[in-house]
Amino acid sequence: MDFVRFPSVSAQPKHADDMKRCAAWLGKHLKKVGLEKVNVVPTQRHPVVYAEWLHAPGMPTVIIYGHYDVQPPDPLSEWASPPFEPTVRGDNLYGRGACDDKGQLFTHVKAIEGFLHVTGRLPVNVKCLFEGEEEIGSPHLTDFIERNRRALRAHFAVMSDTRMLGRNRPSLTYSLRGQLGLDIEVRGPRHDLHSGNFGGAVHNPLQALCEIVAQFHDKRGRVAILGFYDRVRHLNEIERAYMRRYGPPDKQILLDAETTVGWGEPGYSLYERVTVRPSLTINGIRGGYEGVGGKAIIPSRALAKISFRLVPDQDPHEIEILFRRYLARITPPTVKSIVRTNQLANPAVIDRREPALLAAAIAYRKAFGTNPVFLRSGGSIPVVSTFKRVLVIPTVLMGFALPDDHTHAPNEKFHLPNFYKGIEASIWFLWEISRKAKGRENLPAPCIQRVNCMQNNRL
Amino acid sequence: MDFVRFPSVSAQPKHADDMKRCAAWLGKHLKKVGLEKVNVVPTQRHPVVYAEWLHAPGMPTVIIYGHYDVQPPDPLSEWASPPFEPTVRGDNLYGRGACDDKGQLFTHVKAIEGFLHVTGRLPVNVKCLFEGEEEIGSPHLTDFIERNRRALRAHFAVMSDTRMLGRNRPSLTYSLRGQLGLDIEVRGPRHDLHSGNFGGAVHNPLQALCEIVAQFHDKRGRVAILGFYDRVRHLNEIERAYMRRYGPPDKQILLDAETTVGWGEPGYSLYERVTVRPSLTINGIRGGYEGVGGKAIIPSRALAKISFRLVPDQDPHEIEILFRRYLARITPPTVKSIVRTNQLANPAVIDRREPALLAAAIAYRKAFGTNPVFLRSGGSIPVVSTFKRVLVIPTVLMGFALPDDHTHAPNEKFHLPNFYKGIEASIWFLWEISRKAKGRENLPAPCIQRVNCMQNNRL
Repeated sequence: MDFVRFPSVSAQPKHADDMKRCAAWLGKHLKKVGLEKVNVVPTQRHPVVYAEWLHAPGMPTVIIYGHYDVQPPDPLSEWASPPFEPTVRGDNLYGRGACDDKGQLFTHVKAIEGFLHVTGRLPVNVKCLFEGEEEIGSPHLTDFIERNRRALRAHFAVMSDTRMLGRNRPSLTYSLRGQLGLDIEVRGPRHDLHSGNFGGAVHNPLQALCEIVAQFHDKRGRVAILGFYDRVRHLNEIERAYMRRYGPPDKQILLDAETTVGWGEPGYSLYERVTVRPSLTINGIRGGYEGVGGKAIIPSRALAKISFRLVPDQDPHEIEILFRRYLARITPPTVKSIVRTNQLANPAVIDRREPALLAAAIAYRKAFGTNPVFLRSGGSIPVVSTFKRVLVIPTVLMGFALPDDHTHAPNEKFHLPNFYKGIEASIWFLWEISRKAKGRENLPAPCIQRVNCMQNNRL
Repeated sequence: MDFVRFPSVSAQPKHADDMKRCAAWLGKHLKKVGLEKVNVVPTQRHPVVYAEWLHAPGMPTVIIYGHYDVQPPDPLSEWASPPFEPTVRGDNLYGRGACDDKGQLFTHVKAIEGFLHVTGRLPVNVKCLFEGEEEIGSPHLTDFIERNRRALRAHFAVMSDTRMLGRNRPSLTYSLRGQLGLDIEVRGPRHDLHSGNFGGAVHNPLQALCEIVAQFHDKRGRVAILGFYDRVRHLNEIERAYMRRYGPPDKQILLDAETTVGWGEPGYSLYERVTVRPSLTINGIRGGYEGVGGKAIIPSRALAKISFRLVPDQDPHEIEILFRRYLARITPPTVKSIVRTNQLANPAVIDRREPALLAAAIAYRKAFGTNPVFLRSGGSIPVVSTFKRVLVIPTVLMGFALPDDHTHAPNEKFHLPNFYKGIEASIWFLWEISRKAKGRENLPAPCIQRVNCMQNNRL
């Protein structure tokens, strides 16, 4: 709850100090837990928190990645309790970041604490890397990893920033979509104009923006940008059958979205549309008068925030060029359009036969009592492709978020039984890795004492 | 400057007290000037300020109308000086309401003060009616006029809330467009959704709103609502020729709008498009994340504020029905759309041969040294059609605003030489009305002492 209380909103400059305070708190906590060489490293924007424990010679080294920054909490009015006053209601902890990613990051911290407290040591070597810029596209993390390429040497990475299928339906994520975030500005007259005096004679930038945005998709729900689908990898029938068998059905996805009607590219299930097919979302529009009552104006400009989710083998840089070309083509001569690029991330796929992934599957079974399914995610985690490219290691995505945890939305929550099972899964995972490395099948298993988390509300 | 200092924004509930204080101040000022029976009358929202002087038996009675409420000042960041700290720069007084309508209303108040101060009497009977709800569509004024139909008996009304063609190019407005203001809400999923997890599978309400708004106009710039143009009165060639001769050319309108390219319905000049042709303006759109940086969401809803400008013989009520029908037809089944009606006003046309209009023309010539032209306006003043319907009187529209006065926009200003010439024009107008009524061509003219307003900056 102390961790969630920090309003560590990386996107908003007014929270720069909160980011620093949150990173310092996290560093202090890692030290208390027993980790070594704790270092809060400044970057050009928000600090990276590093810590390690390297006293298991001959054992694999695991990077534990997480992020302590959170999404902006708007719209504030829709929260049942304030976003930065963590509150337990029922089995859930409510608060911005409770799930994404402070709560999930903490499962690993608590697993480490458990090992060090009970046995005085960890079964493998660990390097913790907790960043503060995930929600803004990790602009300085790549540079940090490249500069510390030697110090960060490891055998694989693990992170918990993805979702399960449902309660007691654990899943391991093996693919992520890439991302491209853009701001579009449409400019018209130099000043706002009186809509009585000029309405009908001047092209309204807000209307022009709508007319432009309406051309981003065709009537069938496909992205209309020329060349957009050219590099999208075609899925074979075996993979599609696997997805049909283990992935959520349309009904489940609609239930999770709390809506009743699907939408989008024809010929694909909703699960396919949000994982192996690319998409374009209008995240926000602003223009003209937004207050109470009316204001009779033609606004001088209008703004839109959009983001693409990309799949192999789409290249965010190439999509950006295609988009700029398309926008120039559809912008009418009566207004001007300007594009600014916010975020870029490559899509990533991990081999389902990766040994670390199989160790994670065993850990899930021990913690949750059931086998996980292998899932694709529609989200983007830029660092996964950076780990692959720079450190040449795979990343295991052990997510503990539930579909109705409202990540990125008001009333974000973390399901507390998942917090405790997540800690267990992390413990089993580290132990299973060490067992596999030693080749000793009969290594004594850790003795985990189950916590009854709902005994009192104080956690 | 005291008058402009009140943030009398009628649209915003937070300014309800400022509205009351502004009305009280105005009432007190009218009493000081020498008007009688001054009464600040509460309505369901903002008070009406009434005052009279009825000591000219046998002379016509003139209603002087004006409004002390103003448009919201947003966007605040674009003002060179704060909107409610009136500031003189060069020949102009800057401030929200300096021109629309506090400054223009004040020309008549100062004309009355001049007459009463110098001669102890007015040449005609006067009833002042200053409302506080013009900028929100005068929702309670019609009721007020209907209830006080007898007390408001008069021969005609005069108001200054319209524009001149340019400096020393006075004009008399003889037609106004009607108005219909609507709020549209498009609703999708119950909560904002993570655009990674759901992007491509759920119809984004913000995207749907854009797709809806893009269908409000056809490719040629005509409003696409079925039946929208059915009742638009066809202008004869004589009227079009008059408009071509006396109205502003396209170039002038673009210059006033500080833009370079026109837009809109083909087959009509820009002047025709903004006066005798109806239009539909998107005044504001709000949806999703609007802050700094990005936020990866599919918003649960999106809002648009739109307003129609209507011409004879369109009926705002009928247009509202046509619009609701059209919206229902173009809203896709994947989202819901809801409409709320804000404002309704009928279009109005005054006969160019109306005697009071001719008296106003003489007054302009005496004050500005040049004959005014008769112009159509694209704006809407709901009270004009109410005066016609309830009191059965015409309204003379003597405007002193300049096209670059930025009414409704940041940096609204009033050109001070127009303020002083406006006072003179009001004096000549009242005198000319009295002369015409007496049938005495050789009534002694008022002796006006010209003020050198720029002698010092203190006014």
